[in-house]
Amino acid sequence: MIKAVYPGSFDPVTQGHMDIIDRAVKVVDELVVGVLVNTSKSCMFTLDERVEFLREATKGYPNVKVEKFEGMTVEFAHLHDAKIIIRGLRAITDLVSEMSIAQTNRYIDDTIDTMFFATDIHHSFLSSTVVKEILAFNGDISGLVPDCVETMIKNRKLKQ
Amino acid sequence: MIKAVYPGSFDPVTQGHMDIIDRAVKVVDELVVGVLVNTSKSCMFTLDERVEFLREATKGYPNVKVEKFEGMTVEFAHLHDAKIIIRGLRAITDLVSEMSIAQTNRYIDDTIDTMFFATDIHHSFLSSTVVKEILAFNGDISGLVPDCVETMIKNRKLKQ
Amino acid sequence: MIKAVYPGSFDPVTQGHMDIIDRAVKVVDELVVGVLVNTSKSCMFTLDERVEFLREATKGYPNVKVEKFEGMTVEFAHLHDAKIIIRGLRAITDLVSEMSIAQTNRYIDDTIDTMFFATDIHHSFLSSTVVKEILAFNGDISGLVPDCVETMIKNRKLKQ
Amino acid sequence: MIKAVYPGSFDPVTQGHMDIIDRAVKVVDELVVGVLVNTSKSCMFTLDERVEFLREATKGYPNVKVEKFEGMTVEFAHLHDAKIIIRGLRAITDLVSEMSIAQTNRYIDDTIDTMFFATDIHHSFLSSTVVKEILAFNGDISGLVPDCVETMIKNRKLKQ
Amino acid sequence: MIKAVYPGSFDPVTQGHMDIIDRAVKVVDELVVGVLVNTSKSCMFTLDERVEFLREATKGYPNVKVEKFEGMTVEFAHLHDAKIIIRGLRAITDLVSEMSIAQTNRYIDDTIDTMFFATDIHHSFLSSTVVKEILAFNGDISGLVPDCVETMIKNRKLKQ
Amino acid sequence: MIKAVYPGSFDPVTQGHMDIIDRAVKVVDELVVGVLVNTSKSCMFTLDERVEFLREATKGYPNVKVEKFEGMTVEFAHLHDAKIIIRGLRAITDLVSEMSIAQTNRYIDDTIDTMFFATDIHHSFLSSTVVKEILAFNGDISGLVPDCVETMIKNRKLKQ
Repeated sequence: MIKAVYPGSFDPVTQGHMDIIDRAVKVVDELVVGVLVNTSKSCMFTLDERVEFLREATKGYPNVKVEKFEGMTVEFAHLHDAKIIIRGLRAITDLVSEMSIAQTNRYIDDTIDTMFFATDIHHSFLSSTVVKEILAFNGDISGLVPDCVETMIKNRKLKQ
Repeated sequence: MIKAVYPGSFDPVTQGHMDIIDRAVKVVDELVVGVLVNTSKSCMFTLDERVEFLREATKGYPNVKVEKFEGMTVEFAHLHDAKIIIRGLRAITDLVSEMSIAQTNRYIDDTIDTMFFATDIHHSFLSSTVVKEILAFNGDISGLVPDCVETMIKNRKLKQ
Repeated sequence: MIKAVYPGSFDPVTQGHMDIIDRAVKVVDELVVGVLVNTSKSCMFTLDERVEFLREATKGYPNVKVEKFEGMTVEFAHLHDAKIIIRGLRAITDLVSEMSIAQTNRYIDDTIDTMFFATDIHHSFLSSTVVKEILAFNGDISGLVPDCVETMIKNRKLKQ
Repeated sequence: MIKAVYPGSFDPVTQGHMDIIDRAVKVVDELVVGVLVNTSKSCMFTLDERVEFLREATKGYPNVKVEKFEGMTVEFAHLHDAKIIIRGLRAITDLVSEMSIAQTNRYIDDTIDTMFFATDIHHSFLSSTVVKEILAFNGDISGLVPDCVETMIKNRKLKQ
Repeated sequence: MIKAVYPGSFDPVTQGHMDIIDRAVKVVDELVVGVLVNTSKSCMFTLDERVEFLREATKGYPNVKVEKFEGMTVEFAHLHDAKIIIRGLRAITDLVSEMSIAQTNRYIDDTIDTMFFATDIHHSFLSSTVVKEILAFNGDISGLVPDCVETMIKNRKLKQ
Repeated sequence: MIKAVYPGSFDPVTQGHMDIIDRAVKVVDELVVGVLVNTSKSCMFTLDERVEFLREATKGYPNVKVEKFEGMTVEFAHLHDAKIIIRGLRAITDLVSEMSIAQTNRYIDDTIDTMFFATDIHHSFLSSTVVKEILAFNGDISGLVPDCVETMIKNRKLKQ
């Protein structure tokens, strides 16, 4: 049985992330989405919100779990007996930093490997940063995040 | 059961290719290495030699098969009931052409996906072209191709 | 009145080219599409076919003309009193060569400038080369070239 | 009549920016330079200074206006009835982020398009950041910013 | 006699930096490693620690000196009568910023030139940032920094 | 004494090449420009012409020699007791192939190293290919090649 982890900040999860999850679960038997606790980037959404968004968005996938994690990705993989780290590749600058991270991870622990999927062209411009910029100006994010996440974000605003 | 294809010219197979094969078979249940028949690049080795090199180099892998193919990679994948195409990523220019190929393949048939592995740093400069250039000047290719392939290439030279 | 040229091989014209034409004519008053006569690339279609495809595909645009040309793009621009060269940008390697060409053209004649449009994401993988590869294996090119061009290519095959 | 906006931080305006303005006004009938109010980057110059620098530097151009703006570029374009966003392209990392921004803007509002000019080679290393680094060490910025801006920056220092 | 400077933050010095020093001293007669005082990046190690690490790591090189500096690299070079700035090149994004810095430095003072070495493939993923991330999670950095620096970092932790 | 080689096709030598030579001889004691005999690219100028152009253009440099060579660059370096290979870096695609070549050369012989200079911005668009394209259309190449080479190319045309 092949287990994999898919680490990230998911601030918030986008349709680009969902596309990677959807394609990864066709290859691996179990996927643990890892939501970074202490990311150096300052987040728009709390850790609990980011996890909640992902759990709601992935509830149709029986073999996907969503967990918080802090520390090194290879340790998170070990904790879940996963031999594979999943990442999406969008653009050139992505590649440079992603390959550096993958090679550092292999240096730390060469029993764990990284597999990349090329981002779907329809999401090639999309990132959590793009979503946050549109939200900052009260723009429309439908189609950029899962529908349930769009609703949750709207409800969150009403509360504030 | 997950089946994958790993297409290429393999003119000749290098230790960089072997590294990708070695890592891919830890994830997929069966891997079919596809050796391109009518590649637009002019080859140093015949199709039969390229296949023979790979069969010798992979004979320790029970779940790896080596097959000739011509035409589109997605059709080769269909023929072998494979849902995954495996590719190695070495550098930036690789990425640009590889992502274009992967996105074209998904356009033609979106039931087949491409998974990338980042080339091991020790092989980051290595390609079949590098091997052929060293061979052209009678340089030493040990460590750049599998040992058995180095021997086969030496024997081939003696015959000529 | 702003006149511009849009030079290329157009072997054959794709929906990516059509998207650039469609967006350019919103900015310039007249656009002359220049089809390269003696391109160094060996073409699948004859010069006359490439021009015919484009004339058919652009006949709905009153301010677009299609002309053959050979020699330097800046001279073609001069011939048509155009001060602007239009180009599409798809990917990183595109940029490097496109900027070199644009800067060479400005060196030769700094009264003529180049304006770039970012390729629409839905065509980001698309090029004439991709179309020709699919045609080579009798694949389906609908949606990749204008409908009228698809029909013309089919009719051409029947004749051969 | 073609109207365009040219958005940026302009902290401070450089000769690279002036080159883009000079070339853009040959193509469009009216250009509104938009100076970002609430940029995430911390600025060396105040918003009023940045606007004043630009107004002084562009006073020879009858069809250029300089305006503050906050929020999304597409909304700024709408406000001025502009259908075109102008951007300069300097290097590879520029391209990746610029294409992402352009594609996001087209997603938000596909009636507004982005046109790129390749930075003049003589300004290819030049950016506001470079100017600020040289200023930080009391270096010479003549030739890097418009003469009037150099004078204004010198006078500003004397006052401080 | 050729003198050169090798500027950086060295927070901390890595085996990648040591490789560049080792190769540079084969070409130049004297190398002054310049440790940036007021770097905009927030450092894990103090200026004195960063200098001490480098002095210890380079004590086997009679023609290498380690000095603090602030301000522009070209002025630091002047101060030491050096005509050459040494830099390592690791990846694409490195290149873009490194070429911009080199071209700015030549603009400021064209009597001083920059020479680049391609990072050794075994260190291609390695940077001070990678070392700091591993340290942050109490990971193993042996092989990534000089042995003496690894010891000094361990002793520093015990003291804290 | 530091000796270096500067290998290339030089078909023909450009002002970009001359700039690299001019800067390299400030660092190394002797520079051997190596003109490739059997380059895979088809050349516009014969080997003898390419050597003659370079000898004429470099005759003001007492410590520069021009020699033909075939085979591997590291062997050419050995033949001339050179420990350094000099290369110019122009753009991103340059970097990727240049780093691969440099790393292959170090693999073959790690006593020989490669040093890169960033191309002067004024020559950033310039290459032998650009010169040949302009020549093909009888364009003006003054300023792109050394004056003496421009004259030699004109005389060559008169003879043909």
